[in-house]
Amino acid sequence: MSATKILLDEKDMPRQWYNLAADLPTPPLPPLGPDGKPITPDMLAPVFPMNLIEQEVSTERWIDIPEKILEMYALWRPSPLYRAKRLEAALGTPAHIYYKNEGVSPPGSHKPNTAVPQAYYNKEFGIERLTTETGAGQWGSALSFACSLVGLECKVYMVRISFDQKPFRRLMMETWGGKCVASPSNETQAGRAILAEMPDTPGSLGMAISEAVEAAVTDQSGKTRYALGSVLNHVMLHQTIIGLEAKKQLELAGEKKVDTIIGCAGGGSNFAGLSFPFIADKIHGAEIDIIPVEPSSCPTMTRAPFTYDFGDTAKMTPLLPMYTLGHDFVPPPIHAGGLRYHGMAPLVSQTIRDGLASPRAMHQLDCYEAAVLWAKTEGFISAPETSHAIAATIEEAKKAKEEGKEKVILFNWSGHGLMDLLGYDAYFNNKLTNYPLPEEDIRKSLASLEGLPKP
Amino acid sequence: MSATKILLDEKDMPRQWYNLAADLPTPPLPPLGPDGKPITPDMLAPVFPMNLIEQEVSTERWIDIPEKILEMYALWRPSPLYRAKRLEAALGTPAHIYYKNEGVSPPGSHKPNTAVPQAYYNKEFGIERLTTETGAGQWGSALSFACSLVGLECKVYMVRISFDQKPFRRLMMETWGGKCVASPSNETQAGRAILAEMPDTPGSLGMAISEAVEAAVTDQSGKTRYALGSVLNHVMLHQTIIGLEAKKQLELAGEKKVDTIIGCAGGGSNFAGLSFPFIADKIHGAEIDIIPVEPSSCPTMTRAPFTYDFGDTAKMTPLLPMYTLGHDFVPPPIHAGGLRYHGMAPLVSQTIRDGLASPRAMHQLDCYEAAVLWAKTEGFISAPETSHAIAATIEEAKKAKEEGKEKVILFNWSGHGLMDLLGYDAYFNNKLTNYPLPEEDIRKSLASLEGLPKP
Repeated sequence: MSATKILLDEKDMPRQWYNLAADLPTPPLPPLGPDGKPITPDMLAPVFPMNLIEQEVSTERWIDIPEKILEMYALWRPSPLYRAKRLEAALGTPAHIYYKNEGVSPPGSHKPNTAVPQAYYNKEFGIERLTTETGAGQWGSALSFACSLVGLECKVYMVRISFDQKPFRRLMMETWGGKCVASPSNETQAGRAILAEMPDTPGSLGMAISEAVEAAVTDQSGKTRYALGSVLNHVMLHQTIIGLEAKKQLELAGEKKVDTIIGCAGGGSNFAGLSFPFIADKIHGAEIDIIPVEPSSCPTMTRAPFTYDFGDTAKMTPLLPMYTLGHDFVPPPIHAGGLRYHGMAPLVSQTIRDGLASPRAMHQLDCYEAAVLWAKTEGFISAPETSHAIAATIEEAKKAKEEGKEKVILFNWSGHGLMDLLGYDAYFNNKLTNYPLPEEDIRKSLASLEGLPKP
Repeated sequence: MSATKILLDEKDMPRQWYNLAADLPTPPLPPLGPDGKPITPDMLAPVFPMNLIEQEVSTERWIDIPEKILEMYALWRPSPLYRAKRLEAALGTPAHIYYKNEGVSPPGSHKPNTAVPQAYYNKEFGIERLTTETGAGQWGSALSFACSLVGLECKVYMVRISFDQKPFRRLMMETWGGKCVASPSNETQAGRAILAEMPDTPGSLGMAISEAVEAAVTDQSGKTRYALGSVLNHVMLHQTIIGLEAKKQLELAGEKKVDTIIGCAGGGSNFAGLSFPFIADKIHGAEIDIIPVEPSSCPTMTRAPFTYDFGDTAKMTPLLPMYTLGHDFVPPPIHAGGLRYHGMAPLVSQTIRDGLASPRAMHQLDCYEAAVLWAKTEGFISAPETSHAIAATIEEAKKAKEEGKEKVILFNWSGHGLMDLLGYDAYFNNKLTNYPLPEEDIRKSLASLEGLPKP
């Protein structure tokens, strides 16, 4: 029998991350400050350590991965590349479907690929404590895990409604020694101001970011910094280990070329992690379809303009050049919480502008249908975010069947859904819907971008 | 750096299971029927398919693993062997600590190693539907997963209190297409009788077994059988793939010999799976400490007599020769639900009688302390059952430090604890205790064994 899993030995783990900024046909636009002028590294210093800021602005093609990070990566990396033979059989497709299993990490997703380096570089810089925000808890648990490995304190501001409804992710953070509070909290000025006005607010990611950034920059010891789990260039950089491993593994599997690369995209990091090394090949002439997948109800890449916008609702971040539905946009409450983001990483946005990636939007019910077929064939229970990549993969595999083509399709199985089973329950009990496109909300939210600088 | 994970390629997966019954110095005693006479294979035919009954009574040393089972195993096997380097460093021990990571399977434990073959052999025998019972849900979810792979219906009777308190395991079963009902149910005569007498009962494993067996044997089509997740010989047999892989991997790691083998033991299957291939070496002269670990509050191996007893509280099973606290024994409500069993697999019991294994009992709080140290060093969050093996491993590693010996210790990390985080929450909030040994309960329960045949 041919192999189901293509393993890579630890000694063959990539020793460098790949920086797409070095190869993009159009150099990325700079982030802007409140005055409309490009941000300088110094301006970010109260928020991030300088060694990470250097990665953020770097245009070096390859950046060495320190030995100590490789040792921590080895707790779960290289992740296995799987051939989804049972799904292929169920679909009767001639396509070869491969997926990278990022669910094998201790927190169960791709997030630790950047959480570990971010914790490491902060520790190296003399930082003692990291703050961050989290929605459903994937990122907060990954950062707590990473901080426990390197010996940093970790403080997570978790959106109140998730804090109350999803105690398991909070318990993961606490098991790794992280402190998790519901946001808005009484611990920050931003939190207190919000609570004074709206004592019963369910919270939001925007509020939680405000609290986490404030807690970092106001610590007088200077030993606290903030960490972000997606969107930024250095986050995309760290995630490229996924695609770099996958390339080696496809070669081991005897595949001469890959035709299609698929990843779900919320802030963009898991998609970027798999796709950027392949986009490099595309820039140099390879014919590859690169497909980032988003929810139809939060259609950042497929419906929004490319413009400067804030990364958060509280307007505390620099202005980033990206596809954006507007920082005021509140996506419908789909279960794929990690895809409910109004913007898209500037580097990912740039690949779309340059015609290197072709985004696609999928409906919630189609994604759950795909995830259930996946569980019954491939066995693993998928995160609702990941199910978007599965649904698009199935579409492509069916197309290959119609065309009679033995296409090679690779997607990123970004995480397991063991903490997300209530969404499956709702699906089985017909309690889920495909939300109609919130046209009016998008119109209003985009209107709030007037007056901001244009690219 | 030396490797953290020792991987085994799919093509090097063991092709045969190992049957310890072929090598035991004392041949195991037969199970007895209600008349006190040995059970014959025919008597088991309404409950199990004949191909599994043949394995149950086999004394062949090696039994071939069918190719189709190997293909399904490949979804997660061979499982990685890890060197716990970060734990070693935290303990400052010269010991080499290795663990087999069985948490990588889709349901997250070692249980699918036997669920998949049991589903396969039933399907081969023309069976269309399996029934089983489950407590906290590990076994029920593993069997649902296995049935979805081979195309069998699966019906799980889940102890009522767990059904209500732990909906996530039920949701896993449903995602794989299994049907899960709270036990006692109105669907069986046994269930209805119990409900008539005790309408508000929280249920028990004994009651659930009665319902599952009744549902199998009363199906007039003859197409339904029952599946058990531990205790029986064929279950131990299927699990030996764990130890057989581990042997190859230790060799790849350059270890010339192993000094200590550790596994937690409830019904005995995960302990047997890792240890039996090493017990074979011990029988042939190797010096290895073999340590099955149980909870101090359910001290089957360390405090109970070896005698004939029923496998279930409802006295529906044959009489099995084993260490037993008595079929009426109700263990204290420790979080390690999988270790709350009154008996012990006959094959495991026999290794203890023959002096081949030296059981140890651990207190709940020590196990949680060990599990938290584990999460902070090795990253993975452990099932409460697994934490018993970790606690014993840490004891052995500290002993090696005191003795200044570079011992090689291998234990079975039988599953992750992502569905068991409420136990961690209770531990962090000082709501857990070490239950005192229930001496009076044990005395009463053992008294109920009077009148049963003696070995």
